[in-house]
Amino acid sequence: MINLSCDYTCGAHTKVMEALVQTNGCHTVGYGEDAFSEAARAAIRSFFCCEDADVHFLVGGTQTNRVVIDTLLRPHQGVVCAECGHINVHESGAIEAGGHKVLPLPDHDGKIKAAAIDSCFYDHFHDPNYEHMVQPGMVYLSFPTEYGTLYSLKELKAIHRVCRKYNVPLFIDGARLGYALASKANDVKPSDLPKLCDVFYVGGTKMGALMGEALVMVSKRWRQDFRYIIKQHGALLAKGRLLGVQFQTLMSDGLYMEIGTNGCETAEQLHNGLEALGVEFRYDSPTNQQFPILPDEVIERLNGKVTYSWWCRHDETHSVIRLCTSWQTTPYEINQTIELIGQLLKEQSETPR
Amino acid sequence: MINLSCDYTCGAHTKVMEALVQTNGCHTVGYGEDAFSEAARAAIRSFFCCEDADVHFLVGGTQTNRVVIDTLLRPHQGVVCAECGHINVHESGAIEAGGHKVLPLPDHDGKIKAAAIDSCFYDHFHDPNYEHMVQPGMVYLSFPTEYGTLYSLKELKAIHRVCRKYNVPLFIDGARLGYALASKANDVKPSDLPKLCDVFYVGGTKMGALMGEALVMVSKRWRQDFRYIIKQHGALLAKGRLLGVQFQTLMSDGLYMEIGTNGCETAEQLHNGLEALGVEFRYDSPTNQQFPILPDEVIERLNGKVTYSWWCRHDETHSVIRLCTSWQTTPYEINQTIELIGQLLKEQSETPR
Amino acid sequence: MINLSCDYTCGAHTKVMEALVQTNGCHTVGYGEDAFSEAARAAIRSFFCCEDADVHFLVGGTQTNRVVIDTLLRPHQGVVCAECGHINVHESGAIEAGGHKVLPLPDHDGKIKAAAIDSCFYDHFHDPNYEHMVQPGMVYLSFPTEYGTLYSLKELKAIHRVCRKYNVPLFIDGARLGYALASKANDVKPSDLPKLCDVFYVGGTKMGALMGEALVMVSKRWRQDFRYIIKQHGALLAKGRLLGVQFQTLMSDGLYMEIGTNGCETAEQLHNGLEALGVEFRYDSPTNQQFPILPDEVIERLNGKVTYSWWCRHDETHSVIRLCTSWQTTPYEINQTIELIGQLLKEQSETPR
Amino acid sequence: MINLSCDYTCGAHTKVMEALVQTNGCHTVGYGEDAFSEAARAAIRSFFCCEDADVHFLVGGTQTNRVVIDTLLRPHQGVVCAECGHINVHESGAIEAGGHKVLPLPDHDGKIKAAAIDSCFYDHFHDPNYEHMVQPGMVYLSFPTEYGTLYSLKELKAIHRVCRKYNVPLFIDGARLGYALASKANDVKPSDLPKLCDVFYVGGTKMGALMGEALVMVSKRWRQDFRYIIKQHGALLAKGRLLGVQFQTLMSDGLYMEIGTNGCETAEQLHNGLEALGVEFRYDSPTNQQFPILPDEVIERLNGKVTYSWWCRHDETHSVIRLCTSWQTTPYEINQTIELIGQLLKEQSETPR
Repeated sequence: MINLSCDYTCGAHTKVMEALVQTNGCHTVGYGEDAFSEAARAAIRSFFCCEDADVHFLVGGTQTNRVVIDTLLRPHQGVVCAECGHINVHESGAIEAGGHKVLPLPDHDGKIKAAAIDSCFYDHFHDPNYEHMVQPGMVYLSFPTEYGTLYSLKELKAIHRVCRKYNVPLFIDGARLGYALASKANDVKPSDLPKLCDVFYVGGTKMGALMGEALVMVSKRWRQDFRYIIKQHGALLAKGRLLGVQFQTLMSDGLYMEIGTNGCETAEQLHNGLEALGVEFRYDSPTNQQFPILPDEVIERLNGKVTYSWWCRHDETHSVIRLCTSWQTTPYEINQTIELIGQLLKEQSETPR
Repeated sequence: MINLSCDYTCGAHTKVMEALVQTNGCHTVGYGEDAFSEAARAAIRSFFCCEDADVHFLVGGTQTNRVVIDTLLRPHQGVVCAECGHINVHESGAIEAGGHKVLPLPDHDGKIKAAAIDSCFYDHFHDPNYEHMVQPGMVYLSFPTEYGTLYSLKELKAIHRVCRKYNVPLFIDGARLGYALASKANDVKPSDLPKLCDVFYVGGTKMGALMGEALVMVSKRWRQDFRYIIKQHGALLAKGRLLGVQFQTLMSDGLYMEIGTNGCETAEQLHNGLEALGVEFRYDSPTNQQFPILPDEVIERLNGKVTYSWWCRHDETHSVIRLCTSWQTTPYEINQTIELIGQLLKEQSETPR
Repeated sequence: MINLSCDYTCGAHTKVMEALVQTNGCHTVGYGEDAFSEAARAAIRSFFCCEDADVHFLVGGTQTNRVVIDTLLRPHQGVVCAECGHINVHESGAIEAGGHKVLPLPDHDGKIKAAAIDSCFYDHFHDPNYEHMVQPGMVYLSFPTEYGTLYSLKELKAIHRVCRKYNVPLFIDGARLGYALASKANDVKPSDLPKLCDVFYVGGTKMGALMGEALVMVSKRWRQDFRYIIKQHGALLAKGRLLGVQFQTLMSDGLYMEIGTNGCETAEQLHNGLEALGVEFRYDSPTNQQFPILPDEVIERLNGKVTYSWWCRHDETHSVIRLCTSWQTTPYEINQTIELIGQLLKEQSETPR
Repeated sequence: MINLSCDYTCGAHTKVMEALVQTNGCHTVGYGEDAFSEAARAAIRSFFCCEDADVHFLVGGTQTNRVVIDTLLRPHQGVVCAECGHINVHESGAIEAGGHKVLPLPDHDGKIKAAAIDSCFYDHFHDPNYEHMVQPGMVYLSFPTEYGTLYSLKELKAIHRVCRKYNVPLFIDGARLGYALASKANDVKPSDLPKLCDVFYVGGTKMGALMGEALVMVSKRWRQDFRYIIKQHGALLAKGRLLGVQFQTLMSDGLYMEIGTNGCETAEQLHNGLEALGVEFRYDSPTNQQFPILPDEVIERLNGKVTYSWWCRHDETHSVIRLCTSWQTTPYEINQTIELIGQLLKEQSETPR
C-alpha cells in the first residue's frame, strides 16, 4: 500500500523518534520550562532570525489557532480569513466556541487578496451601524493554504501593509510551513516571516513530529501572561520537553527543510507524471498536497493500492482527490502511483461505456 | 418632520403608556412572577392558541435571540439562518459570543428555502469529516424577514418538515410579528405558529411597547430551568411587571393587530404611491418596511423633511433607502411623503446634469 | 399592606414617570445617541465631577456587571470580590458564563479589606504555580454592600491604593448608590468616586427608575469599542432615550439624593424604633436595607400586613429578615410597622410556650 | 539526583516507549479511529468490566476535565467539587472559561462527604432565590485526591447515591487512578468504577505514558456527538494512534497495575522510613504522593540531592513538601532519601540555634 492520503498517517521521522528514545530517561521540569524546550526555542529563533520572539510549544493545530485567536481578539472582534480557511471549515467551531465570529472572504485558489481584506475593514468602519456588527480584529492566513498554494512575498507584504494600516495583527497558520519554505515556487524566506506577521506557527505534526506546533509570538503586545491562556485551554503539555526534544531535532542539521524538500519534490514528480498522462488539477499547488481530477472509476480502483483523501465532486463522472506526500514518500512510490493511475486511465478509456 | 426611519423612534403606544401610568403605584413581586405578567401570558397563549406553552418576557431582540440559541444548542452546534439574518449581521457577534457558529444560507428576498436547509443538513451528515465541522443544530427564521418579506404558510410548513426530519428545533424571530400577521399578503394565522415551530417571540419594541419581547416556548424540551438562563444573561428584568403590563395591553382589545394593520396599510399606501411615480423597490415587501430605489440627489433632499434609513447603494446614481411605518404613521403623513418625493423626482428629472 | 420587601416592588418615582409620559411622543434616534441621553450623561458627569468620563446606560445590574467584567478582564483573569458579593451569589453564574472565575474573599459585614485584597494579589504572584491558577485581574465592590453597610472614604482609598499597586482596575457596583451617598454615616462624596475607581455604576432600578443603570467609565483604557460589547451582550436598548429621560430626571433638582435621603431616613427611623423594642440586627446598616432578627412566630404574623424578604435563619427560634425602604416609604408606614412589630413581640412574649 | 518532585518528570515507561518505536512506521487513519486505539479501548472496557462504555483518548488532564464538564453541564449549571479540587485550583480557570462556576465544598484530607454534597443540592433547591444562583449540576471527585488520599468504596457509594437522588452525573478524575487501585488501603475494584459514576478517566501522563488520558463514558446520556466537542476543544489528536498504542501497552500484561504498585510500595517505604525518624505528615496518604512536614533548613539542604515540590508553610520553622514516587522509583532511591533526611534531621537537631 502506498500512503498518500495524508501527511500524518504514520509516526515520527526516524531522527525525531531516536531523539525521544535517547532522552526518555532524563528527568526534567514540566510544562516546557526544561532545557530541551529552551534549546528548541533558540533554534527556532535562529532559523527565523527573530532573536527577540517568544516561542511556545503546543500540541495541535486547532488548539494553537484557538489559543492564539482567543488571545489576540477583544470580545467584540472577529477574525478575517479565506472561506476555505481551516478555522472556518474544519475546526468544529473552535473559534466561535471561544466567542469570536469567523469572517470569511472569498478565496482564489485558497488565498485572499490584500484588496479584499482592505475593503472588509474599510466597509466595516464606514457602515453607519458598525457597532452592531462584528469588528474585524485580525487576519488569519494559512501558508501554504488548505489547497497547497502559496502566497508570494509580494502578496504577503501587501496583506501585511493592510494589517498595519488598520492596526490589526496578522497570524499565519504554518501547519505545513516546511512544505511552503521548501517549495521551488516559494520566494518567502524564513527570516521574512517575523517581519510580515505578528504571530505564526511552525507545524510539527504534519512535518515529521509525533505531534506539536511551535508558536512564534513576534509581537510584544500579547506576550504577557500568555502561558496562563495556554494552560486554561488545556494546551500546556505536562511533559513539555517532548515537544522541545522534537523541535530541537527538526531544527537541527537542516532536518525541517529536508522533510519539506522531500515532500515538495515527490509532489512535483507526482504532478508532472500525472500531467503527462493528461490529468488536470483542481488547484495549481506547488507544495506537498496535489489535487488531481480523476474519473470516479479510476478513483474507486485505487482502493487497496494507494490511499488518498476524497476531496469533492468535479462533474458527473469525475472527482477531485487529494494526494499528499511527506518526509516518508519515496520517488519509487510516486513512480508506482503514476504508473498505476496511467494504467487505470488507459483501461478506463478503453472500456466501452 | 415625518418619521419613517424606523418603527422604534418614539415611545410607547398611548394605551400602553396609560397602562404603565395607571399601574405605576402598584406593588408586585419582581422578575415577572406578578399578576400582570401572568395575565399577559394567558393573553398570549390564548391569542396564539397554545394553552400549554411557556411564555417569558425579555427586554430586547438581540438578548432574546442569544438566550434562546444558547439554550437550544449543544456546544458543537450552530444555527442555520439566512445570510441577511439579524443574528448573522446586526447583533455584534452575540451568537458567537455564546459559543455558536452562525451558518448562513443564501437568501432570496430575505428568505431561505426548505430545500436549501435540507441540503445543509444532508451535506453535513454525509461529509466524511463531519465531526470536524460545526453541526447544524437549529434553524432561525425572521417573520417578517429583515427585508419585510413573508414566508407563506406552505413555505413555513416545508421548513418545519425539514426540521422534524432532522430532529432540530425551529425558532422564529418575530420582532415585527404583528406586521406579518396583519399583512394582506399573509396566510399564516397566529394559531399556526405554535404548530410550526418550537420557539418564537412576539415583538414588543417595534410594535408599540417601550421595550420587551414575549418569548413563547412551545416545545417542552428546553423549558426546565429556562429562567436561570434568562437571569444568567442579565435578561431577567427586576421590575418584570413592566413587560407584563405592556403585553397585557397590547393583547387586549385587538391592539396588537390594530398596530400591525396601521403599519401595513400605511406602508401599502406608500408603496402604491411611490410605484405610481415610477419608483422601483429593492424587495417586494408587503409589510411595514419599504425599500424604494431613489436617485441620490432625491434622497439627499429628504433630509430635514422625512427621516429614513440609508440601506445600500443601488447603482452609481441611486441608492436604496428604508422607509418604515408603525402604529403612529398616519395616511396624511404618507400622502405628504409621496407628494414630496414626487416633487423631488420631478425637479431632479428636469435638472440639466 | 406596607411594602418593605424590596426597593423595586413598584413602578417609577412620579417625576420619572411624568418625564416619560411627556417625552413619549418625541421621535429620537435609538441606542442612546439621542439628546435626552446626552443631557443625562452631562448631568451625571457634572454630579460626580468627572467631565471627562464616558457614561453609558444599561438596563439592569447583572447585565451591567457582566458587560463591565467581560470588558475589563483578559481571558485568564478573575474578579476579586466579597464572598457575599452579588456577582458571586445572585447572578446565576453570569460572570463565569462570560468565562471568568469569581475569586471571593471573606467579608466582614459585607465588606472586604484592603489588606486581604493585597494578600490575594501578593500570594498569587508569589505562588510557584501561578500560571496554573486564575490571575486576579480586577476588584469588585458594592457600595453600599449587599448587607447595607458602607465603606468609609479611608477604606475605599486603601483599596484603591492596592489596586494601583497591582495595576488592576477597581469597579464599584452602585445599584443602591444613592442610599450610600445620602446616608448620615457616609463620608464619601460623589466627586470622590471617579478618583477612587476605574468604573462605577449609578443604580436606577432601585432608586426610583422603571429600570436602568448608568455606567461611568472613568478610565480611558477600556473606552474604545465599548458600545460593541454592550450590543453583543444584548444590553443596548433600542429606545435608549428611555434611560436618558429617566436619568435626566433623577439627576435634576436633587431628585436622586432626595430619593436616597428618604430611603435612609425612614430606614433609620425603623432601626431606632425596633432597637427601642429590644430588637437586634444582623448587620449594622446605615442605609435603606435593615436586617432585624425576629422570632419566627412574629415574622409569620407579619404576612398580610408588612412585606419583607426572609434572609436567613438566626437560631432555632429566630430568623433574620430584610426590610427595605425606598423613595416611597413614609414615616407613617414606618411607625405602623414599628407598632405592629412591637405589638407582636409583646404578644409573643406573653404567650405561654 | 533522586527525582521525587513529580510523577511526570521523565519520559514513558520503557515498554510504552518500545511500543511507540515498534509501531512508528505503521500507517493508520488519524483521530483515534485506528486499530491500535480500538484495541486499547477494548482492553480498557475489559479491565473495568464495562463492555458497553465509550472510550476516548485525550492528551492531558485539564483538557479532559474541561471537555467532560462542558459536555455534561447545561449553561446555568456548575460543578461541585472539593475546595482543593484540581479544577478549582490548578487549571487556570479552564472550567470557568467554558462558562461554568466551580462550586467548592470544604474538603477533609482532600475529600468531600456525601452529606455535604446532599446539603449543597438540598439548599440550592430550597432557596427562595434559587433561579438567581448557579445550579449544582454535577459532582467532580479526584481518585486519588490531590492529597493522595482515597475514598473508600462505602464513601463512593454514598456519593453516588446522592448523585442519583438529585439526578446529576458523577465524574471521577483518575489522573493517578493506578496509584489508587494499587494501594493497599484501597477497597475499590476497577469493576466498581463504572457502577459508581457516569464518566471517569484513566490517567496516562502520570502513570508511565508520554501523555494521554483515557476517558470512559459510562452513561449513554452524553455520548452522541461527543467527538465533535473533543475536536472543538482542540483535543482530538491528529496521530491519535499514539494514545492507542500507549494505552494498549499500559493495559497489557498488568503493566498499569504494576506501575501503580511500584509507586505505592516505594511511597509506603518512604512513609514508614520517615515516620520512623519521627517525621509527621500533613495528610495520611496511602498512595504515591507523600506530604512530610520538615524543618525549613532540612528542606533547603535537599536541593541538589533529592527533588521535591514545595507544598505549603506548616509553621514558622517547618514546611510541607510533596515527595512523589512513580513506576521508576526504586527501593534503593527511597533508602537513600530516608538516610539523607535522617542525617539532615540529626545535624539540624544538633545545631545550636
